[in-house]
Amino acid sequence: MNNRNLDHLFNPKSIALIGASATPFKWGSLIPLNILKGNYQGKIFPVNPGLETMLGHKCYPSVVDIPEPVDVALIFTPAPTVPGIVEQCGIKAIPFLVIITADFSETGPAGAALEAEVLKKARQFNIRLVGPNSMGIFSSQKELHALMPPTMPLKGPASMFSQSGNVGVQMLAWGTDEGVGFDKFVSSGNEGDLNSADYLAYFANDDATRVILAYMEGVGPDLDLYPVARAASLQKPVLLFKGGRTRTGGKAAASHSGAIAGSNRVFKAAMHQAGVIEIQTSQAMMDCAKAFSHLPLPKGNRMGILTRGGGWGVITSDACEESGLSVPPLPDDLIKKIDKLLPSYWSRGNPVDMVATISNDPFLECLELLAGWDDIDAIIALGAFRATIKFPISKNVTGPPEVMDAITTALRFRKSMSAQPDAIMAGIKKLTDLTGKPIVAVSTGPDILHRATLQEYQVVSYPTPERAVRVMAHMVEYAAFRRRSKSL
Amino acid sequence: MNNRNLDHLFNPKSIALIGASATPFKWGSLIPLNILKGNYQGKIFPVNPGLETMLGHKCYPSVVDIPEPVDVALIFTPAPTVPGIVEQCGIKAIPFLVIITADFSETGPAGAALEAEVLKKARQFNIRLVGPNSMGIFSSQKELHALMPPTMPLKGPASMFSQSGNVGVQMLAWGTDEGVGFDKFVSSGNEGDLNSADYLAYFANDDATRVILAYMEGVGPDLDLYPVARAASLQKPVLLFKGGRTRTGGKAAASHSGAIAGSNRVFKAAMHQAGVIEIQTSQAMMDCAKAFSHLPLPKGNRMGILTRGGGWGVITSDACEESGLSVPPLPDDLIKKIDKLLPSYWSRGNPVDMVATISNDPFLECLELLAGWDDIDAIIALGAFRATIKFPISKNVTGPPEVMDAITTALRFRKSMSAQPDAIMAGIKKLTDLTGKPIVAVSTGPDILHRATLQEYQVVSYPTPERAVRVMAHMVEYAAFRRRSKSL
Repeated sequence: MNNRNLDHLFNPKSIALIGASATPFKWGSLIPLNILKGNYQGKIFPVNPGLETMLGHKCYPSVVDIPEPVDVALIFTPAPTVPGIVEQCGIKAIPFLVIITADFSETGPAGAALEAEVLKKARQFNIRLVGPNSMGIFSSQKELHALMPPTMPLKGPASMFSQSGNVGVQMLAWGTDEGVGFDKFVSSGNEGDLNSADYLAYFANDDATRVILAYMEGVGPDLDLYPVARAASLQKPVLLFKGGRTRTGGKAAASHSGAIAGSNRVFKAAMHQAGVIEIQTSQAMMDCAKAFSHLPLPKGNRMGILTRGGGWGVITSDACEESGLSVPPLPDDLIKKIDKLLPSYWSRGNPVDMVATISNDPFLECLELLAGWDDIDAIIALGAFRATIKFPISKNVTGPPEVMDAITTALRFRKSMSAQPDAIMAGIKKLTDLTGKPIVAVSTGPDILHRATLQEYQVVSYPTPERAVRVMAHMVEYAAFRRRSKSL
Repeated sequence: MNNRNLDHLFNPKSIALIGASATPFKWGSLIPLNILKGNYQGKIFPVNPGLETMLGHKCYPSVVDIPEPVDVALIFTPAPTVPGIVEQCGIKAIPFLVIITADFSETGPAGAALEAEVLKKARQFNIRLVGPNSMGIFSSQKELHALMPPTMPLKGPASMFSQSGNVGVQMLAWGTDEGVGFDKFVSSGNEGDLNSADYLAYFANDDATRVILAYMEGVGPDLDLYPVARAASLQKPVLLFKGGRTRTGGKAAASHSGAIAGSNRVFKAAMHQAGVIEIQTSQAMMDCAKAFSHLPLPKGNRMGILTRGGGWGVITSDACEESGLSVPPLPDDLIKKIDKLLPSYWSRGNPVDMVATISNDPFLECLELLAGWDDIDAIIALGAFRATIKFPISKNVTGPPEVMDAITTALRFRKSMSAQPDAIMAGIKKLTDLTGKPIVAVSTGPDILHRATLQEYQVVSYPTPERAVRVMAHMVEYAAFRRRSKSL
C-alpha cells in the first residue's frame, strides 16, 4: 500500500456521491450542493436507491450501477453501512474513497472495530481511503468543492491537510478574507488509511503546491514522520500548526480526534530538525501562508526598517531583536545619501525614521537605497500605504459581490486621501523583483485593504509590525535550513 | 510644581493657537483645521501677527491681545521663538501650554539648552507644559481634537498618554476601526515638564477614565514611577506598552525621543510589582483596551470553553495552559445536563465541543449552563457569530459615511446567512451582566463585524482564540493583583 500518487484523488475526472440526499442541512445534501455550486469540472454520479434524481442529476441505486468509470467516491451513509459500500466500490474498481461518515474510531472501541473492518475491505480491493470522519476535500484544478461548509477558497499556491476539518475549512475561508489562495485541501479525519505523511509526501512532489500547510494533533506511534517531513522541507516550506501542545490541549485532542500526541517535546524537536516551520498561533499560520506564498526567501537575518514615525521604528526593532533578527547600523555613505532626501532631524540610522514626512517620493527613494544596501536581507516598510493608496478594482480581485462592494467603498475612502496613488505599492513590488529581497509592508487599516495590496499589487502587508517581524523570523529560519541542508 | 490637576488642560474653556497658519500641510494649519472639524466646545483664539483671520476666526497679533481668559495655548512656531512666547503666555496668565514645536532636547545639546530655557520661563510664571515635540491632545468632553492627523477617535472610557505621538494617534485611529473609545489623549513629547507620572496620576483620579493606556520608551533617572503606578493600578487597569525593551529597540528610542530606558529588567519588575499590566504587542494593546473597557474582571483563572469544532477547542486549550489559565474538567451533573442538549458524540468535557451543531438554541443553552457553573470564572465562546448574526445599524454605530456603507454591506452579507439573528449576542451580554463573569466571543470574520458586536451588543469579540486567551490572561493577572492588594 505504498501508492502515494494521489493525483486521481485530488483531480478526479468523475465522482460518485454515495448517500447523496435532498434533505437540507444533512452532509449528504450540503456537500453535493457545494460541489455543484463550485462548478466541478468532471462527471457527477449521485447514489441513492430512494431517489430518481438529486439536484437535477440522475441518481443510481448503487455504485455498481454507474455506467462509467469513477475516480473518487464520497460516502455520507451511516457508519454501519460503510463496509458493504466499500466492497461495492471495490467491485466497481474505484481507487479512492472519501469517507465523510463519522462514528468510527473517534467514538470508542466499537467504532474502532468498525473502522478496522472498513480498512480490511479497502486493502482487499486495493482502495485508498480518506477519513473516516473527514470534512471533505478541495481541489482548485478541478474546481472540486467537496466540503461541508459553503467555502469557496481563492485559488493559489498553498495546499493544506488538517486533522481537524473545522480548523481546515476555517483556514480556507479566512484565506479568502486575507487573499491567501489554495490549490488543494484535505480534511484527513481519523486517518484510518491515508495519513498526514501521505499527504505531506504528495504535496511535496506536487508542482502546483508551493507552500504546505498542516494542522496536526498527533500521529500514531508507528508513523515516522521525520523522513517525509525532511524530504518535503527540502522541496518547499512546510508550515505546521500543532494542536495538543500542552497537557490541557492534548486532553481536548484525545476526546476530539482520538489523536495521541506522544511526547510533544520529542515531536517538536524532530520536526524542527526536519526543517518544518512550527507556527504558534492561528493568525501566524495565515500570516506566514501569505508571505511564503508570495515572497522570495531572505538570504540572512538582517533587516532594514523604514518608518514614518520613530515610535513604530522602536516597536519594530524590539520585535526584531526578540525574534532573533538583526537591525544593522546604517553605513556612512548611505546616511549621506539619505541626508539629501529627508529633513535634517531624521534618525540617521536604521530604522530609517522619516520623521513624519508625508509625501511619497522620499519614501520610495529611501526604500530603493535600503533595498540596494548589501548588508541587509529584507525590508520592513512601515506606513507604506498611509494615505497613499488607490486600489483600482480590476478582475484580479475576486470575491462575492457584497465583499466587492465593501472593498470598493473602503478603497474610495482611501483614494480620497491619496496623493500619489499606487506608486509605493508598485515600487515595493518592483524592488522585490529587482533585488530578490523580500519587502513587507505594514499599515493599520481594515483587513480588506491588506487583501487588496496582495491581489492588486502582489505586495504582502500586515496591520502591525510585530506580525510582519514574526513572519520574517520564520522565513529567515526556513532559509537558514535550506542553506544548511545544501552545504551538507 | 505639584499641580497635578490637569482639568483645565484637558477640558479648556478657551484655547489660543499660536502660530496658526493658512498654509496647507503645516502643523500650524493641520491642527487648527482638525480642532474646527472636531467641533471644539470652547472659544478659539488664533494668534498670528501676519494674518487678519484664520479659517474664519479673527487672528490676534499676540497672545496678550486676546480679550478673554485662555486656559490652554498650543504653540506651533519655530523653536527659537518659543521662550519669548512662553513669557507672553505667562503675562497673559495661561496655565497650560502644549508645545507642538520640535527641535528641542530630542535633537541634541543645543536643543536641550533651549528646552531648559523654555522650562525656566514656564516655572517663573507657574505654567505647566505639554511637550515640547508633542503631537497634541484630545479630549472627548470638550470635543477637542488638537492633533496633527485627521483622527476623530470614538468616545469611550480609555485615556492614553504616549511618548510617541505617532504610536498614540495611530492607536486612536485604530480604536475607531475596533470600536475602542477614548476619553482623553496626550502625546507627551519630550516631557520637558509634565511627564508620564503626571498624566498617570491625573488619569488615575479622573472619573471619566476607566482604563489607562500608556506607550512609554523611557523615564528620566530622577523619576520614580513606582508609587504613582501602584496608586493608579489600585484604582483602575493601567496597560503599559513599553518601547525600547531590547538593546536594538533602546538604540532606536534614543535616536528618536532621546529617552533612556535604563535597565529594562528593573523597570519591568517594578511595574509588575506596581500592578501595571505590561502588554507585549500593539495588537494586544488594542485587544486589551477593548476588554478592559467593557468587561467585568474574572474572579480567578478558570476558563469555560464552548466550541462548535473540536480542533478550535484544542487550540484554545493549548493557549490557555501556555498563558497560565486553567480549563477545569466538567462535573458529572453538568455533563448530564448537556447530554440532553447535544448529539451523543459531544466531547463530554471542557471544552464543550458541540460537534458541528449548527443551530443556535443549544449554543445558548450550553453557554447558560457554563455561566452558571461555580467552578469557572470566565468563558471563551468560539464560533459565537457563525452564520448567526444580524446587525441592525442604529445610531449607536458611528463612523464616516464610507465606513458605515462598508459595514452595511458586510452585515447584509452576514444577515443573509442568518437563522436566529441576534440571539447569541444578546444572550452573551445578558449572561455577562447576570453572572458578572466575562464572556468573550471568538469568530473569524472581517474586523468591521467585531466592531459591530461591540457597538451594537456590547459584546467583546476577537477573530482568533489565541487573542481572546491572551486578553483573558491579562485580566486574570490584574484581578489577582487587585485581590492581593485588598488582602494586604
